[in-house]
Amino acid sequence: MQNMSRRDMLKMSMVGAGALAISSINANAGINASDVTFDEEWDVVVVGSGFAGLSAAIKAAQKGNKVIILEKMGRVGGNSVINGGGMSVPVNEIQAKTGIKDSKELFIQDCLKAGLEINHPELLQTLADRGSDAFKFLQECGCQFKTTHCAHFGGHSVPRSVLTANDSGSAIVQPMVELFEKIEGCKLSRRTKFDDFVVDGDRVVGVVIREDYKFDNKLFSDDLENTSGTKKILKAKKGVVLASGGFGNDKIFRKLQDPRIADDADSTNHAGATAGAMLKAFELGAFPVQIDWIQFGPWASPDERGFGTGPILTQQGTFKYGIAVDVRNGKRFMNELADRKRRADAEFKILKEAPGKYPVTFGDDKCFRDLSQDVIDKGMSSGKLVGVCASLDELASKYGIPADALKQTVKEYNEGVKAGKDELGKPVAGLEPINEAGPFYAVRLSPKPHHTMGGLKINEKAQVLSSKTNKPIAGLYAAGEITGGTHGASRLGTVAVTDCVVFGMIAGENI
Amino acid sequence: MQNMSRRDMLKMSMVGAGALAISSINANAGINASDVTFDEEWDVVVVGSGFAGLSAAIKAAQKGNKVIILEKMGRVGGNSVINGGGMSVPVNEIQAKTGIKDSKELFIQDCLKAGLEINHPELLQTLADRGSDAFKFLQECGCQFKTTHCAHFGGHSVPRSVLTANDSGSAIVQPMVELFEKIEGCKLSRRTKFDDFVVDGDRVVGVVIREDYKFDNKLFSDDLENTSGTKKILKAKKGVVLASGGFGNDKIFRKLQDPRIADDADSTNHAGATAGAMLKAFELGAFPVQIDWIQFGPWASPDERGFGTGPILTQQGTFKYGIAVDVRNGKRFMNELADRKRRADAEFKILKEAPGKYPVTFGDDKCFRDLSQDVIDKGMSSGKLVGVCASLDELASKYGIPADALKQTVKEYNEGVKAGKDELGKPVAGLEPINEAGPFYAVRLSPKPHHTMGGLKINEKAQVLSSKTNKPIAGLYAAGEITGGTHGASRLGTVAVTDCVVFGMIAGENI
Repeated sequence: MQNMSRRDMLKMSMVGAGALAISSINANAGINASDVTFDEEWDVVVVGSGFAGLSAAIKAAQKGNKVIILEKMGRVGGNSVINGGGMSVPVNEIQAKTGIKDSKELFIQDCLKAGLEINHPELLQTLADRGSDAFKFLQECGCQFKTTHCAHFGGHSVPRSVLTANDSGSAIVQPMVELFEKIEGCKLSRRTKFDDFVVDGDRVVGVVIREDYKFDNKLFSDDLENTSGTKKILKAKKGVVLASGGFGNDKIFRKLQDPRIADDADSTNHAGATAGAMLKAFELGAFPVQIDWIQFGPWASPDERGFGTGPILTQQGTFKYGIAVDVRNGKRFMNELADRKRRADAEFKILKEAPGKYPVTFGDDKCFRDLSQDVIDKGMSSGKLVGVCASLDELASKYGIPADALKQTVKEYNEGVKAGKDELGKPVAGLEPINEAGPFYAVRLSPKPHHTMGGLKINEKAQVLSSKTNKPIAGLYAAGEITGGTHGASRLGTVAVTDCVVFGMIAGENI
Repeated sequence: MQNMSRRDMLKMSMVGAGALAISSINANAGINASDVTFDEEWDVVVVGSGFAGLSAAIKAAQKGNKVIILEKMGRVGGNSVINGGGMSVPVNEIQAKTGIKDSKELFIQDCLKAGLEINHPELLQTLADRGSDAFKFLQECGCQFKTTHCAHFGGHSVPRSVLTANDSGSAIVQPMVELFEKIEGCKLSRRTKFDDFVVDGDRVVGVVIREDYKFDNKLFSDDLENTSGTKKILKAKKGVVLASGGFGNDKIFRKLQDPRIADDADSTNHAGATAGAMLKAFELGAFPVQIDWIQFGPWASPDERGFGTGPILTQQGTFKYGIAVDVRNGKRFMNELADRKRRADAEFKILKEAPGKYPVTFGDDKCFRDLSQDVIDKGMSSGKLVGVCASLDELASKYGIPADALKQTVKEYNEGVKAGKDELGKPVAGLEPINEAGPFYAVRLSPKPHHTMGGLKINEKAQVLSSKTNKPIAGLYAAGEITGGTHGASRLGTVAVTDCVVFGMIAGENI
């Protein structure tokens, strides 16, 4: 028997096949660089055009790199562009201006509590340390934010979420895309699918892609079945950044992690949110981390498809200034500002006991005070999402709620607000009672798969770690929802944007 | 641009390198078969010599296959041989004889409840359908079981766990090893480490191993750092069965999934319980499933290393016939027969509030009535694990428990037993009160990493599924703790053995 290294042994067995063949021996996934001819050369290839991809691409381009962003969809921005536009920034300038006392430690504690303490501490610390840099970076990119107040999202101890001017992630994506596309030598390539890595030994040096890709939402698995497009091989001289997002719409992979998710279950995600790029990275040896924690949005509505407008109306409207009730008994059943997991579990419990009996959240005619008129108009436009009722009796009648119990619930909630103490633990200090005279604005609730917490293990430099070495895979970075560990078991609202921008920025800085 | 398949394109680019080189182009992990010379040929290679590996090997060998089992450790049997010897068998002959009514549906419901409903239903159904076959198979292999009763483990609605004659998994491992080693043309190779797969296209056709491997417990990661042994390449004509167990002692991978686990944390597992083989399968494209659910044994003791004897004394002794108390106040703090997650969480809560204040479980002098004298003697032999106290006052004094509160707790528990109703929901019907006169036998409790629920996705035929196709990887099977999905978020006691033997058996039948 040979007492030699694997490389030696393989070299020996290949002696007859000529020197060229040696380079094609490869225990890695990915195509060998020596087996391909590159069609194009770039310094940096970024996969995905959401917050994380754009942040990485701009930072890398600003250092003088020639950067290409690959976006498999026709539309740019993935889930980011349909996101609500809130970004958690611990200890920010708007908090200071409005007298809100926050700290990095409090932010980390809030995240750990929601994450059931399994969050990776060094990644949370990085968010806390670089959140303000990320906010500044976005402003420098031309993104517009509200300057009057920070929003108070569920599970956060204090208001710390800065909000885009139009209550949508599009206010971040659009200026960043414009900025990026103006940079000399850089390109955002739509309908371009990442298929595989090109490797040189253990280093990622390029990607196999398809141009003119036509994503097909009618396929059970677009990643496995779609044969459209024209292959090309791109060199990535400095490396590849994976920023392709989560897998909330991957029918195969999400069900493997949580078999309760039906194949036809609606989610809040854009249609292209699949696991393909992440799974390719696992083949390279990237560590999978906490991949089965799938967050359901407790503020989504069964009365619209996808993310929709409901989540903005409820999170910044009825959940804060109103309440949510179980239609079977008219009673509140959750702290409307608890973390997502607790709220989704509470809703699932009702829907398991009584399928179709969607809980209802509502507020009075001032409950949308913090929202732009655009968002309110959009929410009202379908005529289906928001129920407008003149009185509590009408509300009870419309949604099949016992009227007396409903009135009693509002009365008790209002007493709690006046006393500054809520029986379900909602932080009601400073809130006004619900105007019992009406009118009321109501939205039905149904939890939808929203965010996939797990993914690739990265370090504080956004480098993807390899299970073969417990060290970074040379030339491979990742940021945003494709990574795992930051949020633990449950992500707090608006921390995703922080995660995407901070680690996207870091990937761009380090590559 | 080429509008052609990747294979075509690569073939073209390789034209100059000669025909031999084409076969070495490989987007898979693993070594290419065409690049190696096999040192040995087997029909079936089984990685791991625990319940799952032995079941697969014997079943495959009984069909006439030439089978080799690879065991990296010097000792055979992994965690199986230090296991408590209980095996959950829904609707078994001993239940029938002792008048216990059980059903497959009840078994599945119990598993789903503990597993937080994320168990893979088709795998649970397979356990329910084949559990009796597995029990019969073990008996045919010469394994000796108690025939008088089934044990009632936490989380199960009824007693359904058959027990080996010596209250240890060794009563399963030893006869199976003897049987296997007698089969003509088969071999169990100790100190033999699986390093990688050999593949032919997408098919697994062999393994790269090291003989004379010396596992080194002093290394931070044996998988990554150990260079001992002599390389060999084995052909596996019909395929490879991965049965190498879980990763309860993999300091890197377990901490990625749950950062609360300290590097030096003790576990109930044998030293070789690492993630290496599973991670190699991920590189081949195997789906990772629910990998972050790590079960902590709520019945383990800080007063011995590893699994030890405490778990048997508590599970089949003090938890059933006695109680467990919080030493700070002398009160019970959990249903001693609840599922593992609930009990471990309850203990973690105490230990987070008061580090070092280990809860104490105890029973009277009849509390070990179901155990063999060998096990009791073993438990008593260290003089450290079991505290023997003549009275409740002595017990209170020894463990720093308020004596009056302790007496009150025992009194109230006994009243509940007499009334057939326990305030914490423990099923006490048919139990006797604790003899308040003593003597008492006590064990301190500390949850230890015990079972890793997640792993490779297999189908009902024990075939490993590929993320590249959502179909089986040809030539690759897996069984036991290296797989994921069967147990969901939390495995019920004694279902691991069922899982190992059922899917090991199935792998052997199908390969």
